[in-house]
Amino acid sequence: MTKRGRFITLEGGEGVGKSTNVGFVAGCLKAQGLEVVRTREPGGTERGEAIRALLLDPAPLESLHVDAELLLMFAARAQHLAEKILPALARGAWVVCDRFTDATFAYQGGGRGIPVARIAVLEAFVQQGLAPDLTLLLDMPEAAAKQRLESRLRDRSEQRDRFEQEHANFFQAVRSAYLARAEQAPERFAVIDAQYTLDNVQAQIRQALMARVAEWY
Amino acid sequence: MTKRGRFITLEGGEGVGKSTNVGFVAGCLKAQGLEVVRTREPGGTERGEAIRALLLDPAPLESLHVDAELLLMFAARAQHLAEKILPALARGAWVVCDRFTDATFAYQGGGRGIPVARIAVLEAFVQQGLAPDLTLLLDMPEAAAKQRLESRLRDRSEQRDRFEQEHANFFQAVRSAYLARAEQAPERFAVIDAQYTLDNVQAQIRQALMARVAEWY
Repeated sequence: MTKRGRFITLEGGEGVGKSTNVGFVAGCLKAQGLEVVRTREPGGTERGEAIRALLLDPAPLESLHVDAELLLMFAARAQHLAEKILPALARGAWVVCDRFTDATFAYQGGGRGIPVARIAVLEAFVQQGLAPDLTLLLDMPEAAAKQRLESRLRDRSEQRDRFEQEHANFFQAVRSAYLARAEQAPERFAVIDAQYTLDNVQAQIRQALMARVAEWY
Repeated sequence: MTKRGRFITLEGGEGVGKSTNVGFVAGCLKAQGLEVVRTREPGGTERGEAIRALLLDPAPLESLHVDAELLLMFAARAQHLAEKILPALARGAWVVCDRFTDATFAYQGGGRGIPVARIAVLEAFVQQGLAPDLTLLLDMPEAAAKQRLESRLRDRSEQRDRFEQEHANFFQAVRSAYLARAEQAPERFAVIDAQYTLDNVQAQIRQALMARVAEWY
Protein backbone atom coordinates (compact mmCIF):
# COMPACT_ATOMS: atom_id res chain seq x y z
CA MET A 1 0.00 0.00 0.00
CA THR A 2 1.30 3.43 -0.91
CA LYS A 3 2.05 5.62 2.06
CA ARG A 4 -0.24 8.66 2.09
CA GLY A 5 1.58 11.91 1.24
CA ARG A 6 1.68 14.91 3.51
CA PHE A 7 -0.19 18.17 3.15
CA ILE A 8 1.85 21.30 3.85
CA THR A 9 0.41 24.82 3.70
CA LEU A 10 2.09 28.23 3.74
CA GLU A 11 0.17 31.06 5.28
CA GLY A 12 0.67 34.74 6.01
CA GLY A 13 -0.53 38.22 5.06
CA GLU A 14 0.39 40.27 1.97
CA GLY A 15 4.10 40.97 1.50
CA VAL A 16 5.51 38.33 3.89
CA GLY A 17 7.28 36.41 1.11
CA LYS A 18 4.92 33.50 0.81
CA SER A 19 5.19 32.86 -2.93
CA THR A 20 9.01 32.78 -2.89
CA ASN A 21 9.01 30.35 -0.02
CA VAL A 22 6.43 27.97 -1.47
CA GLY A 23 9.06 27.27 -4.14
CA PHE A 24 11.71 26.86 -1.48
CA VAL A 25 9.64 24.33 0.47
CA ALA A 26 8.88 22.36 -2.69
CA GLY A 27 12.61 22.36 -3.54
CA CYS A 28 13.61 21.07 -0.07
CA LEU A 29 11.14 18.19 -0.36
CA LYS A 30 12.17 17.29 -3.92
CA ALA A 31 15.78 17.19 -2.74
CA GLN A 32 14.63 14.42 -0.39
CA GLY A 33 13.41 12.45 -3.40
CA LEU A 34 9.75 13.08 -2.67
CA GLU A 35 7.08 13.66 -5.32
CA VAL A 36 5.81 17.19 -4.76
CA VAL A 37 2.64 18.87 -6.04
CA ARG A 38 2.81 22.65 -5.72
CA THR A 39 -0.47 24.51 -5.78
CA ARG A 40 -2.30 27.57 -4.46
CA GLU A 41 -5.60 28.91 -3.18
CA PRO A 42 -7.96 30.28 -4.15
CA GLY A 43 -7.57 28.44 -7.43
CA GLY A 44 -5.37 25.43 -8.04
CA THR A 45 -7.62 23.97 -10.76
CA GLU A 46 -9.01 25.36 -14.00
CA ARG A 47 -12.47 25.80 -12.47
CA GLY A 48 -10.89 27.07 -9.26
CA GLU A 49 -8.88 29.70 -11.12
CA ALA A 50 -12.09 30.91 -12.76
CA ILE A 51 -13.58 31.31 -9.28
CA ARG A 52 -10.38 33.03 -8.12
CA ALA A 53 -10.82 35.56 -10.93
CA LEU A 54 -14.34 36.36 -9.66
CA LEU A 55 -13.01 36.77 -6.11
CA LEU A 56 -10.04 39.01 -6.90
CA ASP A 57 -11.79 41.15 -9.53
CA PRO A 58 -11.18 44.77 -8.50
CA ALA A 59 -13.89 46.08 -10.86
CA PRO A 60 -16.50 48.22 -9.18
CA LEU A 61 -19.37 45.80 -9.56
CA GLU A 62 -21.78 45.98 -6.70
CA SER A 63 -19.80 44.83 -3.70
CA LEU A 64 -19.50 41.11 -3.14
CA HIS A 65 -21.42 40.08 0.00
CA VAL A 66 -19.27 38.50 2.71
CA ASP A 67 -21.26 35.26 2.70
CA ALA A 68 -20.97 35.02 -1.09
CA GLU A 69 -17.22 35.61 -0.86
CA LEU A 70 -16.94 32.88 1.75
CA LEU A 71 -18.99 30.38 -0.25
CA LEU A 72 -16.95 31.06 -3.39
CA MET A 73 -13.75 30.44 -1.45
CA PHE A 74 -15.05 27.09 -0.27
CA ALA A 75 -16.42 26.20 -3.72
CA ALA A 76 -12.94 26.63 -5.17
CA ARG A 77 -11.56 24.63 -2.23
CA ALA A 78 -13.99 21.74 -2.73
CA GLN A 79 -12.93 21.50 -6.37
CA HIS A 80 -9.26 21.78 -5.45
CA LEU A 81 -9.51 19.01 -2.86
CA ALA A 82 -11.47 16.61 -5.07
CA GLU A 83 -9.50 17.16 -8.21
CA LYS A 84 -5.95 17.75 -7.06
CA ILE A 85 -5.09 17.56 -3.36
CA LEU A 86 -6.79 14.31 -2.32
CA PRO A 87 -5.69 12.30 -5.38
CA ALA A 88 -2.10 13.53 -4.90
CA LEU A 89 -2.02 12.60 -1.21
CA ALA A 90 -3.59 9.22 -2.00
CA ARG A 91 -0.83 8.33 -4.47
CA GLY A 92 1.84 9.32 -1.92
CA ALA A 93 2.76 12.80 -3.24
CA TRP A 94 3.45 15.68 -0.86
CA VAL A 95 1.26 18.71 -1.51
CA VAL A 96 2.64 22.20 -0.90
CA CYS A 97 -0.15 24.75 -1.00
CA ASP A 98 0.09 28.55 -0.99
CA ARG A 99 -2.76 29.34 1.44
CA PHE A 100 -5.62 27.14 2.61
CA THR A 101 -8.45 27.37 5.16
CA ASP A 102 -6.40 29.24 7.76
CA ALA A 103 -6.38 32.09 5.23
CA THR A 104 -10.18 32.03 5.20
CA PHE A 105 -10.28 32.30 9.00
CA ALA A 106 -7.70 35.13 8.82
CA TYR A 107 -9.13 37.15 5.88
CA GLN A 108 -12.86 36.49 5.96
CA GLY A 109 -12.97 35.92 9.73
CA GLY A 110 -10.39 38.35 11.14
CA GLY A 111 -10.42 40.80 8.23
CA ARG A 112 -14.13 40.92 7.34
CA GLY A 113 -15.55 39.97 10.71
CA ILE A 114 -17.44 36.79 9.72
CA PRO A 115 -17.95 34.81 12.95
CA VAL A 116 -15.48 31.93 13.29
CA ALA A 117 -18.38 29.54 13.91
CA ARG A 118 -19.90 30.34 10.50
CA ILE A 119 -16.60 29.64 8.75
CA ALA A 120 -16.24 26.41 10.73
CA VAL A 121 -19.60 25.21 9.34
CA LEU A 122 -18.24 25.42 5.79
CA GLU A 123 -14.82 24.03 6.78
CA ALA A 124 -16.55 20.93 8.17
CA PHE A 125 -18.83 20.71 5.12
CA VAL A 126 -15.97 20.76 2.62
CA GLN A 127 -13.06 19.15 4.45
CA GLN A 128 -14.92 16.52 6.46
CA GLY A 129 -12.07 16.33 8.97
CA LEU A 130 -9.09 16.87 6.65
CA ALA A 131 -6.50 19.40 7.90
CA PRO A 132 -2.94 20.21 6.78
CA ASP A 133 -0.19 18.13 8.39
CA LEU A 134 2.03 21.20 8.76
CA THR A 135 1.29 24.89 8.36
CA LEU A 136 4.18 27.32 8.01
CA LEU A 137 2.93 30.74 9.11
CA LEU A 138 5.16 33.53 7.81
CA ASP A 139 4.66 36.30 10.31
CA MET A 140 6.00 39.85 10.43
CA PRO A 141 4.90 43.20 11.89
CA GLU A 142 2.37 44.91 9.61
CA ALA A 143 4.64 47.91 8.94
CA ALA A 144 7.35 45.69 7.46
CA ALA A 145 4.84 43.71 5.39
CA LYS A 146 3.30 46.92 4.06
CA GLN A 147 6.69 48.21 2.92
CA ARG A 148 7.40 44.98 1.03
CA LEU A 149 3.97 44.95 -0.56
CA GLU A 150 4.35 48.57 -1.73
CA SER A 151 7.66 47.74 -3.32
CA ARG A 152 6.25 44.68 -5.07
CA LEU A 153 3.27 46.61 -6.42
CA ARG A 154 5.62 49.31 -7.79
CA ASP A 155 7.64 46.63 -9.58
CA ARG A 156 4.58 44.91 -10.94
CA SER A 157 2.91 48.21 -11.98
CA GLU A 158 -0.46 46.46 -11.97
CA GLN A 159 -3.73 47.41 -10.46
CA ARG A 160 -4.17 46.07 -6.92
CA ASP A 161 -6.65 43.25 -6.49
CA ARG A 162 -9.59 43.50 -4.11
CA PHE A 163 -7.60 42.24 -1.14
CA GLU A 164 -4.49 44.32 -1.77
CA GLN A 165 -6.67 47.43 -1.65
CA GLU A 166 -7.60 46.86 1.98
CA HIS A 167 -6.25 49.11 4.72
CA ALA A 168 -4.01 48.87 7.76
CA ASN A 169 -6.73 47.80 10.22
CA PHE A 170 -7.70 44.98 7.93
CA PHE A 171 -4.14 43.64 7.73
CA GLN A 172 -3.69 43.94 11.48
CA ALA A 173 -6.87 41.91 12.01
CA VAL A 174 -5.65 39.30 9.51
CA ARG A 175 -2.33 38.96 11.33
CA SER A 176 -3.99 38.65 14.73
CA ALA A 177 -6.37 35.99 13.43
CA TYR A 178 -3.46 34.00 11.98
CA LEU A 179 -1.56 34.13 15.27
CA ALA A 180 -4.68 33.07 17.17
CA ARG A 181 -5.08 30.05 14.85
CA ALA A 182 -1.42 29.12 15.49
CA GLU A 183 -1.91 29.33 19.25
CA GLN A 184 -4.94 27.04 19.03
CA ALA A 185 -3.09 24.33 17.07
CA PRO A 186 0.60 24.53 18.06
CA GLU A 187 1.23 20.92 16.98
CA ARG A 188 0.23 21.78 13.40
CA PHE A 189 1.72 25.27 13.07
CA ALA A 190 5.31 26.45 12.78
CA VAL A 191 5.45 30.24 13.11
CA ILE A 192 8.33 31.66 11.04
CA ASP A 193 9.62 35.13 11.89
CA ALA A 194 9.64 36.54 8.38
CA GLN A 195 11.04 40.02 9.05
CA TYR A 196 14.67 38.93 8.62
CA THR A 197 16.73 38.30 5.46
CA LEU A 198 15.60 35.63 3.02
CA ASP A 199 18.51 33.39 4.08
CA ASN A 200 17.51 33.64 7.72
CA VAL A 201 13.83 32.99 6.95
CA GLN A 202 14.65 30.00 4.77
CA ALA A 203 16.89 28.54 7.47
CA GLN A 204 13.94 28.71 9.87
CA ILE A 205 11.65 27.10 7.29
CA ARG A 206 14.13 24.32 6.52
CA GLN A 207 14.52 23.54 10.20
CA ALA A 208 10.75 23.34 10.82
CA LEU A 209 10.23 21.28 7.69
CA MET A 210 13.06 18.80 8.20
CA ALA A 211 12.02 18.14 11.78
CA ARG A 212 8.64 16.98 10.44
CA VAL A 213 10.05 15.08 7.48
CA ALA A 214 12.34 13.14 9.82
CA GLU A 215 9.39 12.37 12.05
CA TRP A 216 7.08 11.25 9.24
CA TYR A 217 9.28 9.64 6.65
CA MET B 1 -44.00 51.02 8.79
CA THR B 2 -43.95 49.52 5.31
CA LYS B 3 -45.58 46.13 5.06
CA ARG B 4 -43.02 43.50 4.10
CA GLY B 5 -43.44 42.22 0.53
CA ARG B 6 -44.00 38.58 -0.33
CA PHE B 7 -41.53 36.17 -1.86
CA ILE B 8 -42.93 33.92 -4.60
CA THR B 9 -40.89 31.28 -6.39
CA LEU B 10 -41.59 29.22 -9.51
CA GLU B 11 -40.09 25.77 -9.69
CA GLY B 12 -40.08 22.83 -12.05
CA GLY B 13 -37.86 20.80 -14.36
CA GLU B 14 -36.73 21.67 -17.89
CA GLY B 15 -39.49 22.29 -20.42
CA VAL B 16 -42.41 22.81 -18.01
CA GLY B 17 -42.97 26.43 -19.07
CA LYS B 18 -41.44 28.16 -16.08
CA SER B 19 -40.00 31.22 -17.83
CA THR B 20 -43.26 32.07 -19.59
CA ASN B 21 -45.18 31.80 -16.37
CA VAL B 22 -42.79 33.90 -14.29
CA GLY B 23 -43.88 36.77 -16.52
CA PHE B 24 -47.52 35.81 -16.09
CA VAL B 25 -47.24 35.80 -12.28
CA ALA B 26 -45.48 39.17 -12.29
CA GLY B 27 -48.22 40.55 -14.55
CA CYS B 28 -51.03 39.30 -12.28
CA LEU B 29 -49.42 40.98 -9.27
CA LYS B 30 -48.75 44.25 -11.08
CA ALA B 31 -52.41 44.28 -12.13
CA GLN B 32 -53.19 44.37 -8.39
CA GLY B 33 -51.11 47.54 -8.09
CA LEU B 34 -48.22 45.80 -6.35
CA GLU B 35 -44.55 46.65 -6.91
CA VAL B 36 -43.00 43.52 -8.41
CA VAL B 37 -39.33 42.55 -8.72
CA ARG B 38 -38.81 39.73 -11.20
CA THR B 39 -35.60 37.76 -10.92
CA ARG B 40 -34.04 34.34 -11.40
CA GLU B 41 -31.58 31.82 -10.01
CA PRO B 42 -28.81 31.00 -10.34
CA GLY B 43 -27.94 34.62 -11.07
CA GLY B 44 -30.18 37.59 -10.38
CA THR B 45 -27.27 39.99 -9.79
CA GLU B 46 -24.22 40.96 -11.84
CA ARG B 47 -21.93 38.84 -9.63
CA GLY B 48 -24.54 36.09 -9.51
CA GLU B 49 -24.79 35.98 -13.30
CA ALA B 50 -21.00 35.57 -13.48
CA ILE B 51 -21.32 32.58 -11.13
CA ARG B 52 -24.23 31.27 -13.23
CA ALA B 53 -21.97 31.34 -16.27
CA LEU B 54 -19.43 29.15 -14.43
CA LEU B 55 -22.19 26.73 -13.42
CA LEU B 56 -23.84 26.35 -16.82
CA ASP B 57 -20.63 26.28 -18.87
CA PRO B 58 -20.86 23.19 -21.10
CA ALA B 59 -17.13 23.34 -21.95
CA PRO B 60 -15.26 20.12 -21.29
CA LEU B 61 -13.19 21.45 -18.42
CA GLU B 62 -12.49 18.82 -15.84
CA SER B 63 -15.88 18.02 -14.35
CA LEU B 64 -17.20 20.30 -11.63
CA HIS B 65 -17.29 18.46 -8.30
CA VAL B 66 -20.77 18.17 -6.77
CA ASP B 67 -19.76 20.02 -3.59
CA ALA B 68 -18.23 22.84 -5.63
CA GLU B 69 -21.40 23.07 -7.71
CA LEU B 70 -23.49 23.24 -4.56
CA LEU B 71 -21.32 25.92 -2.95
CA LEU B 72 -21.38 28.02 -6.13
CA MET B 73 -25.17 27.82 -6.18
CA PHE B 74 -25.35 29.07 -2.61
CA ALA B 75 -22.71 31.76 -3.23
CA ALA B 76 -24.87 33.19 -6.01
CA ARG B 77 -27.89 32.87 -3.70
CA ALA B 78 -26.21 34.71 -0.81
CA GLN B 79 -25.40 37.60 -3.16
CA HIS B 80 -28.90 37.56 -4.61
CA LEU B 81 -30.55 37.67 -1.18
CA ALA B 82 -28.32 40.42 0.20
CA GLU B 83 -28.35 42.63 -2.85
CA LYS B 84 -31.80 42.18 -4.34
CA ILE B 85 -34.35 39.96 -2.61
CA LEU B 86 -34.12 41.15 1.00
CA PRO B 87 -33.99 44.88 0.18
CA ALA B 88 -37.00 44.47 -2.15
CA LEU B 89 -39.06 42.62 0.46
CA ALA B 90 -38.07 45.19 3.11
CA ARG B 91 -39.41 48.09 1.02
CA GLY B 92 -42.68 46.23 0.45
CA ALA B 93 -42.08 44.90 -3.09
CA TRP B 94 -43.19 41.41 -4.10
CA VAL B 95 -40.38 39.28 -5.47
CA VAL B 96 -41.11 36.70 -8.19
CA CYS B 97 -38.14 34.41 -8.63
CA ASP B 98 -37.54 31.80 -11.34
CA ARG B 99 -36.11 28.98 -9.18
CA PHE B 100 -34.73 29.10 -5.64
CA THR B 101 -33.53 26.60 -3.04
CA ASP B 102 -36.13 23.95 -3.90
CA ALA B 103 -34.30 23.68 -7.24
CA THR B 104 -31.09 22.93 -5.38
CA PHE B 105 -32.79 20.14 -3.44
CA ALA B 106 -34.26 18.83 -6.72
CA TYR B 107 -31.21 19.12 -9.01
CA GLN B 108 -28.22 18.73 -6.71
CA GLY B 109 -30.08 16.53 -4.20
CA GLY B 110 -32.43 14.43 -6.34
CA GLY B 111 -30.47 14.70 -9.59
CA ARG B 112 -26.89 14.43 -8.36
CA GLY B 113 -27.51 12.48 -5.18
CA ILE B 114 -26.09 14.97 -2.65
CA PRO B 115 -27.64 14.04 0.72
CA VAL B 116 -30.51 16.34 1.67
CA ALA B 117 -28.87 16.97 5.06
CA ARG B 118 -25.76 18.42 3.39
CA ILE B 119 -27.87 20.79 1.31
CA ALA B 120 -29.82 21.77 4.42
CA VAL B 121 -26.54 22.85 6.11
CA LEU B 122 -25.95 25.41 3.37
CA GLU B 123 -29.61 26.43 3.21
CA ALA B 124 -29.49 27.28 6.93
CA PHE B 125 -26.12 29.01 6.52
CA VAL B 126 -27.32 31.31 3.73
CA GLN B 127 -31.02 31.81 4.43
CA GLN B 128 -30.99 31.88 8.22
CA GLY B 129 -34.65 30.91 8.34
CA LEU B 130 -35.97 32.76 5.27
CA ALA B 131 -38.21 30.71 2.95
CA PRO B 132 -40.51 31.67 0.07
CA ASP B 133 -44.07 32.61 1.04
CA LEU B 134 -45.47 30.71 -1.94
CA THR B 135 -43.86 28.23 -4.32
CA LEU B 136 -45.63 27.39 -7.58
CA LEU B 137 -44.38 23.99 -8.71
CA LEU B 138 -45.04 23.40 -12.41
CA ASP B 139 -45.24 19.66 -12.70
CA MET B 140 -45.68 17.39 -15.70
CA PRO B 141 -44.74 13.81 -16.67
CA GLU B 142 -41.11 13.62 -17.86
CA ALA B 143 -42.07 12.48 -21.37
CA ALA B 144 -44.11 15.63 -21.97
CA ALA B 145 -41.39 17.87 -20.54
CA LYS B 146 -38.75 16.21 -22.71
CA GLN B 147 -40.81 16.81 -25.84
CA ARG B 148 -41.19 20.51 -25.02
CA LEU B 149 -37.50 20.87 -24.21
CA GLU B 150 -36.47 19.23 -27.49
CA SER B 151 -38.70 21.58 -29.43
CA ARG B 152 -37.30 24.62 -27.58
CA LEU B 153 -33.72 23.55 -28.22
CA ARG B 154 -34.44 23.12 -31.93
CA ASP B 155 -35.90 26.63 -32.07
CA ARG B 156 -32.99 28.11 -30.16
CA SER B 157 -30.38 26.17 -32.16
CA GLU B 158 -27.91 26.67 -29.34
CA GLN B 159 -25.66 24.27 -27.57
CA ARG B 160 -27.30 22.71 -24.50
CA ASP B 161 -26.02 23.86 -21.13
CA ARG B 162 -24.61 21.44 -18.59
CA PHE B 163 -28.02 20.70 -17.07
CA GLU B 164 -29.89 20.35 -20.34
CA GLN B 165 -27.43 17.61 -21.35
CA GLU B 166 -28.53 15.33 -18.51
CA HIS B 167 -30.52 12.20 -19.21
CA ALA B 168 -33.95 10.76 -18.46
CA ASN B 169 -33.07 9.24 -15.08
CA PHE B 170 -31.73 12.58 -13.94
CA PHE B 171 -34.95 14.41 -14.85
CA GLN B 172 -37.08 11.74 -13.23
CA ALA B 173 -35.09 12.11 -10.01
CA VAL B 174 -35.47 15.91 -10.20
CA ARG B 175 -39.23 15.61 -10.57
CA SER B 176 -39.54 13.15 -7.69
CA ALA B 177 -37.46 15.38 -5.43
CA TYR B 178 -39.65 18.39 -6.27
CA LEU B 179 -42.83 16.46 -5.50
CA ALA B 180 -41.33 15.23 -2.22
CA ARG B 181 -40.52 18.84 -1.24
CA ALA B 182 -44.11 19.85 -2.02
CA GLU B 183 -45.47 17.04 0.14
CA GLN B 184 -43.32 18.12 3.05
CA ALA B 185 -44.50 21.74 2.93
CA PRO B 186 -48.08 21.72 1.56
CA GLU B 187 -48.85 25.12 3.11
CA ARG B 188 -46.09 26.74 1.07
CA PHE B 189 -46.44 24.85 -2.22
CA ALA B 190 -49.08 24.99 -4.93
CA VAL B 191 -48.55 22.16 -7.41
CA ILE B 192 -49.69 23.18 -10.90
CA ASP B 193 -50.46 20.47 -13.43
CA ALA B 194 -48.46 21.88 -16.35
CA GLN B 195 -49.22 19.31 -19.03
CA TYR B 196 -52.33 21.15 -20.25
CA THR B 197 -52.69 24.19 -22.54
CA LEU B 198 -51.12 27.47 -21.50
CA ASP B 199 -54.59 28.93 -20.79
CA ASN B 200 -55.43 26.08 -18.49
CA VAL B 201 -52.08 26.25 -16.69
CA GLN B 202 -52.36 30.00 -16.23
CA ALA B 203 -55.87 29.64 -14.87
CA GLN B 204 -54.49 27.25 -12.24
CA ILE B 205 -51.66 29.65 -11.44
CA ARG B 206 -53.97 32.66 -11.15
CA GLN B 207 -56.25 30.78 -8.80
CA ALA B 208 -53.40 29.67 -6.50
CA LEU B 209 -51.89 33.13 -6.55
CA MET B 210 -55.06 35.11 -5.95
CA ALA B 211 -56.06 32.92 -3.04
CA ARG B 212 -52.81 33.91 -1.34
CA VAL B 213 -52.98 37.57 -2.34
CA ALA B 214 -56.46 37.80 -0.84
CA GLU B 215 -55.22 36.18 2.34
CA TRP B 216 -52.13 38.40 2.70
CA TYR B 217 -53.09 41.75 1.31
